[in-house]
Amino acid sequence: MIKTIHTIAFDGDDTLWHNESLYALTQEKFAQLLAPYHDAAWVDRKLYETEMRNMRLYGYGLKAFTLSMIETAIELTEGRIQGYEIQQIIDATKAIRQAKVALLDGVATAVAQLAETHRLMLITKGDLLDQEAKIAGSGLADFFADVEIVSDKTAVTYQTILDKYQIPAEQFLMVGNSLKSDVLPVVELGGIGVHIPYHITWEHETVGEQQQETAVYHALTHISQLPELVARLAG
Amino acid sequence: MIKTIHTIAFDGDDTLWHNESLYALTQEKFAQLLAPYHDAAWVDRKLYETEMRNMRLYGYGLKAFTLSMIETAIELTEGRIQGYEIQQIIDATKAIRQAKVALLDGVATAVAQLAETHRLMLITKGDLLDQEAKIAGSGLADFFADVEIVSDKTAVTYQTILDKYQIPAEQFLMVGNSLKSDVLPVVELGGIGVHIPYHITWEHETVGEQQQETAVYHALTHISQLPELVARLAG
Repeated sequence: MIKTIHTIAFDGDDTLWHNESLYALTQEKFAQLLAPYHDAAWVDRKLYETEMRNMRLYGYGLKAFTLSMIETAIELTEGRIQGYEIQQIIDATKAIRQAKVALLDGVATAVAQLAETHRLMLITKGDLLDQEAKIAGSGLADFFADVEIVSDKTAVTYQTILDKYQIPAEQFLMVGNSLKSDVLPVVELGGIGVHIPYHITWEHETVGEQQQETAVYHALTHISQLPELVARLAG
Repeated sequence: MIKTIHTIAFDGDDTLWHNESLYALTQEKFAQLLAPYHDAAWVDRKLYETEMRNMRLYGYGLKAFTLSMIETAIELTEGRIQGYEIQQIIDATKAIRQAKVALLDGVATAVAQLAETHRLMLITKGDLLDQEAKIAGSGLADFFADVEIVSDKTAVTYQTILDKYQIPAEQFLMVGNSLKSDVLPVVELGGIGVHIPYHITWEHETVGEQQQETAVYHALTHISQLPELVARLAG
């Protein structure tokens, strides 16, 4: 089937640039900090519970992650955690924020190539300033006609964007590492979802097997395969 | 001079709904928490310094405020602050987030009236999810053709918005409580700035007298005066 593609949209974190690996490293340090109190698996479990409990209030992003680590540290030490240790948590997350943006392999070439033939968009979630800084630091900003930083990525979010830019759903292609946030909601709307897994997936972004099997989407192992897929879809 | 007004844009916090008063109350509680260590004026001063130091990394909003209070508490107690006290800081800011949106007097009427004759826009800064929740909770969402949640409000920010929506600067009217963020950058671009002061202004949003005197803008004491000003500007 031949499809005209109006817009190719990309996720940012772990699709264009490394992100979860920095979080995972910080979470390891966090578990070490609390090692005198609990084992790492338990610390991870409680942190995840705190993050989910805070999601409705804090949303996604680095500041939410920081505040949830602080709360978890207080809870797991029954308030015995010291001020200087909490400062270590804050400093570790500031280091994430200040880390140089590291593009995934093949991203620069694929994005530049697709920008020659298609309208590109970036749709990313997280802290506003944090995401803006990453976009600026990526060196890719000029390739994107539009950038949308959103608080969540549901079918409603994507529908709002499609309406705003008057993009027919079936001509909208979204590429990302998260089935839950980047692929399935777009497929639900009749759009084209392309999944490129990252080597680590945050637990919250995983979906059950059943949910995956009912959706039809494209899967690639590397972003360098994307221009070929786009060419193939266009007939 | 007769001016056609294309779009009337509103700031959110302390222009449409109360905000700084909630922050000020929390900051008082914070000073009480640290009263055994330092007097309130010194606590306020150090908190402000921390907020300014963190601005480049954290931006505006409630999570930034929370993290800066925690850092200040650790610094001012030389790490002696207890975990349960830090949890009190976190809880106090969660209460701000969960507070019912309280519109300023006259806002509902003025906004509804102006929406009948003009295209309205909301331009607000802060945490993405926090601002979205306030807009939803305000009951005013349907009056605004567009909502822009931005990380800062400079002349560059406003120029980007004017370009995006193809609004001529001289036909753009922006209303807000902050001279620095809502009025002066718009006037700088040739737009119409309308200042409606709130009874408290965060130190960061204040501007020197000299800066004020060189700009020409409109000042109102109450939002109920806005429809009349708009009618007058339109001739």
